[in-house]
Amino acid sequence: MQKQVVRHEDQQNTNEDTGTGNVLTITDWLQRWKTDPQETARDLLDRQQKRIADWEAGKTPQWIHLVALDVLEAQIDELLKKDAKDLPLYGVPFAVKDNIDVAGIPTTAGCPEYAYTPDSDAFVIAKLKNAGAICIGKTNLDQFATGLNGTRTPYSIPHSVFSEAHISGGSSSGSAVAVALGEVAFSLGTDTAGSGRVPAGCNQLVGLKPSKGYISTNGLIPACRTLDCISIFAHTVDDAQKVLAIAGVYDAEDPYARRAAPSTKSLSSQGLKLATFSGLQWFGDTEQKAAWDAYVAQLAKRGITLTEIDPTPFFALAPLLYNGPWVAERLAALSDFLAEQPEAIHPVVREIVQSGEKFSAVDTFNAEYQRADLARQIQLSLSGFDALMVPTAPIFPTIEALLAEPIKLNSELGTYTNFVNLADLSALAVPAGLRADGLPFGITLIAEAWAEVRLATIAKQLNQEQTGIPPLRRDEIALAVVGAHLTGMPLNHQLTGRGGRLLEQTTTAASYRLYALANTTPPKPGLVFDTKGDEIIVEVWALPRSALADFIQEIPPPLGLGTLTLADGRQVTGFICEPRALHDAQDVTEFGGWRAYIASRQSAPLAPQPKGITHA
Amino acid sequence: MQKQVVRHEDQQNTNEDTGTGNVLTITDWLQRWKTDPQETARDLLDRQQKRIADWEAGKTPQWIHLVALDVLEAQIDELLKKDAKDLPLYGVPFAVKDNIDVAGIPTTAGCPEYAYTPDSDAFVIAKLKNAGAICIGKTNLDQFATGLNGTRTPYSIPHSVFSEAHISGGSSSGSAVAVALGEVAFSLGTDTAGSGRVPAGCNQLVGLKPSKGYISTNGLIPACRTLDCISIFAHTVDDAQKVLAIAGVYDAEDPYARRAAPSTKSLSSQGLKLATFSGLQWFGDTEQKAAWDAYVAQLAKRGITLTEIDPTPFFALAPLLYNGPWVAERLAALSDFLAEQPEAIHPVVREIVQSGEKFSAVDTFNAEYQRADLARQIQLSLSGFDALMVPTAPIFPTIEALLAEPIKLNSELGTYTNFVNLADLSALAVPAGLRADGLPFGITLIAEAWAEVRLATIAKQLNQEQTGIPPLRRDEIALAVVGAHLTGMPLNHQLTGRGGRLLEQTTTAASYRLYALANTTPPKPGLVFDTKGDEIIVEVWALPRSALADFIQEIPPPLGLGTLTLADGRQVTGFICEPRALHDAQDVTEFGGWRAYIASRQSAPLAPQPKGITHA
Repeated sequence: MQKQVVRHEDQQNTNEDTGTGNVLTITDWLQRWKTDPQETARDLLDRQQKRIADWEAGKTPQWIHLVALDVLEAQIDELLKKDAKDLPLYGVPFAVKDNIDVAGIPTTAGCPEYAYTPDSDAFVIAKLKNAGAICIGKTNLDQFATGLNGTRTPYSIPHSVFSEAHISGGSSSGSAVAVALGEVAFSLGTDTAGSGRVPAGCNQLVGLKPSKGYISTNGLIPACRTLDCISIFAHTVDDAQKVLAIAGVYDAEDPYARRAAPSTKSLSSQGLKLATFSGLQWFGDTEQKAAWDAYVAQLAKRGITLTEIDPTPFFALAPLLYNGPWVAERLAALSDFLAEQPEAIHPVVREIVQSGEKFSAVDTFNAEYQRADLARQIQLSLSGFDALMVPTAPIFPTIEALLAEPIKLNSELGTYTNFVNLADLSALAVPAGLRADGLPFGITLIAEAWAEVRLATIAKQLNQEQTGIPPLRRDEIALAVVGAHLTGMPLNHQLTGRGGRLLEQTTTAASYRLYALANTTPPKPGLVFDTKGDEIIVEVWALPRSALADFIQEIPPPLGLGTLTLADGRQVTGFICEPRALHDAQDVTEFGGWRAYIASRQSAPLAPQPKGITHA
Repeated sequence: MQKQVVRHEDQQNTNEDTGTGNVLTITDWLQRWKTDPQETARDLLDRQQKRIADWEAGKTPQWIHLVALDVLEAQIDELLKKDAKDLPLYGVPFAVKDNIDVAGIPTTAGCPEYAYTPDSDAFVIAKLKNAGAICIGKTNLDQFATGLNGTRTPYSIPHSVFSEAHISGGSSSGSAVAVALGEVAFSLGTDTAGSGRVPAGCNQLVGLKPSKGYISTNGLIPACRTLDCISIFAHTVDDAQKVLAIAGVYDAEDPYARRAAPSTKSLSSQGLKLATFSGLQWFGDTEQKAAWDAYVAQLAKRGITLTEIDPTPFFALAPLLYNGPWVAERLAALSDFLAEQPEAIHPVVREIVQSGEKFSAVDTFNAEYQRADLARQIQLSLSGFDALMVPTAPIFPTIEALLAEPIKLNSELGTYTNFVNLADLSALAVPAGLRADGLPFGITLIAEAWAEVRLATIAKQLNQEQTGIPPLRRDEIALAVVGAHLTGMPLNHQLTGRGGRLLEQTTTAASYRLYALANTTPPKPGLVFDTKGDEIIVEVWALPRSALADFIQEIPPPLGLGTLTLADGRQVTGFICEPRALHDAQDVTEFGGWRAYIASRQSAPLAPQPKGITHA
């Protein structure tokens, strides 16, 4: 799959070598390596050579350091020598924000005087390299990740790939630009106040801000250590999820790591339930507002509507981040360096960091109580929805405008991002069309912590993204589900929460009857073999084999797992029932599947169908 | 069950009305109400009347306020009028630490000048009252819950029920004494640094300090709001668990409430794996040390041994609580009152609270990073064990000694309790015999958050209560097999070949029928639920969870795995069959099991019986 990057007509590519207009997803790269490894290797090296020349000529503001050609060549050679083509990120190039350690490359955090060269990779970098990914360089950022705009750097200021005049967004500026230009398939950013989302919006990318503690921050220079998240930029939601699956490994050595606890809340079965804020603020940016209105109108045409909620607790929480005691975290991280070389710090950043001096411990705890109270109000206000949808940013300023009012515009940029980490939420920024002036517009989906899978599902539904579903892996078992475990149904989380993924929707052989069992909560069907039966819709899921024991122990009698025959003759493990299940059960075979039966009982529109899957 | 309170021979009872030497558990109270409600009501009121007289005469240092007789009578009348005998705490009297709101009774926090009378019950009080429990009064405490000794009160100083000379422990002093004297079946304390555990140790009680956020703190005057836990004193572990089951309801209105996530770690199957600290400190208290040595020796005789671990991270964490920024939480809670009436605060408490002024926001975050790092080290060091066992307190000082050195001895008292809440652990203090001088000795079991059930199980094992836990490891799943997978049968290798091992032979509940299926090779039975069925012999096997996916894929239709109910009511994963299995099948229930049926057909010697297992 190749995605055409739509660019503003005035745009000048900063990198001619990547000016093909085509970008490659992770799947594309895997395919290239399979098809012609030698050609792919040569191309990767050629492009790096050209990139290094451009970098030396000062033409690549997105890069602070690039991996030397011989080092890259050695890495590729090693990969080629290994029989490792099954690695999930085999040979996929990626970029790393320059506040995350990559062994042998200086870490600057956007401050050359601060730089040091780490001996070892950050935990997350090691995971990605082990999965076959190839780091090609370190990217520019708002210094010490303090900013949302991309201008606070002593290196050249990157700009949106859609406009030389407009900001790239920040603080993960270079990581977004490198992906948007097609130089890499994905990149790592970081996100404390929105640094992994605003640049996605400015460059028509997917920006995934996972739950706090999901991706280890070992090897990251902290901004606000209790809030920092490592984030992912990619071209597609699927790619971001693939990277998260590899990057999101629990790291016992990171004191703030948390074990993933995927949300058990399934998607509403009666259509998406999305919230947005009443009285959205745009700070005079009519183009942003018009793009939002157009996107919302387009969703409405498809029956997807938004419910307005009160933004008060969200907006009350945000100021704590830059105007409350949490700035003292930035000071705590930099106090030694600030004492030694204050002049080395960008003046705007220095002013922010120094403001941490004015808060006491009592201030800190009082603010923490306020945070906890507002976070709880926010979580309660979101609890009835599948997600909150907001503009990724209310404004899209020029670099010139930003530099003229660096604090004010930065604060406005964070309107819809600042509260997220303080409230312990997960967020996913995705493209949402173009503005009338050709600049990209983006929206962000937000939900409680550990809702990454749900957010991804919603994003794909909104943008009707096609899924190139990879086949069953050796460490997975195929499971046919027929009732409450279907996508969007109440027990679907028992699959998704264990790393299950939908492979396909299909039907059984024409030799089954479907019964609605009596007295089951949530309502459950029983699938019963009967040569005079019919084809019944099932979903085939891939579940990690290691998760089967946990899964089976959640199945109540009279249900169980046995062997089902599918329409194409395949036999798969799937739901069966004991004979007693038929007591008082109602034969609902005529509906052809559980979803249709449930919809008929609710006298409501049909539950959303999963998109982009092949019917057998 | 009645537990004899063993008292030191020199002890003088403070309450003559409760000087029977007998204490009543929750079960005892429920029984009394069932047997003779009128007599029980009269007795409760008579005792309250006498208690009020004693209180007016200054003889009950454990009580700050008692519920007025007419109020208590009205509550009892209401309970008697309702047909509510099934309420889990029907008529069970309890006491409440006087920093938790009970509607209509002043809350003093041990400071009369601070007192106010709340209109409504704290969340947890409402839950207990709804379950039928009757609050008889509010108990004394170290003022503002600042202390572990019980002497920091402007009211009379309570003492251990075992000795007038010795401390009651604190800060939940009165709550422990009221239970120990048998005045109530249970009580609520609070626990920030050990206030729910030290008094349990001083009074031969069970003290349960649940995970942070388990019991709502709405209606509690905060000490350190991010660390405070409401705790439970009871006579038995079972009673403490019963109260927790009712008190531990998630309260969305409490910003620090967390949804219970009971630990999935099961007990080690090869005997308890208990840790303790190397180089335990006793600060010269040879009686405490001797009691510990005697208790450990007694466990060793039963094959229960302790593995010594390094206490360094535990002891490094503790000082943060009183000598680090967390004292600013106490200041944040009291700053207005401190400014208005500093002289109203107990001088030792005031000194501690005021010390919160010296810490900055940067200090706070640096200490928080240190806390998180040490907490992770602690959690890792405990991860290989079922629990950590420590003395509840290393010393048991007299009130006189404590008053002479109030800060130093208090600090020593917290040696084995201070680190627990900062490290997000759960803890259970239980009696562990008597010292040579007749004073009680207690130990505390500690594990990660949400391990309350495991800690209770261990405590009962240590104190030799029966548990009947099958020796299943946490990496195994229990599987009930009924036919060709039984020991010695043709498909048994599918279990043994995957590392399966026999746990026990038992039978199903008397609600199954056994069928010999038609046309199966080797011959296979189907187990079918039928309320008119019988007990069928099954074997319960332990199979590595990782092997389940392979195993299930070898099961041919119409068989599968579902849930079976065993004779003792346990539900285990086991063989079921689809309805179609019954086609042409022969009912062989009368044989009581597959082995007997096969033997009858073969006219051959019985298949080998499994060795060394208990037949149900």
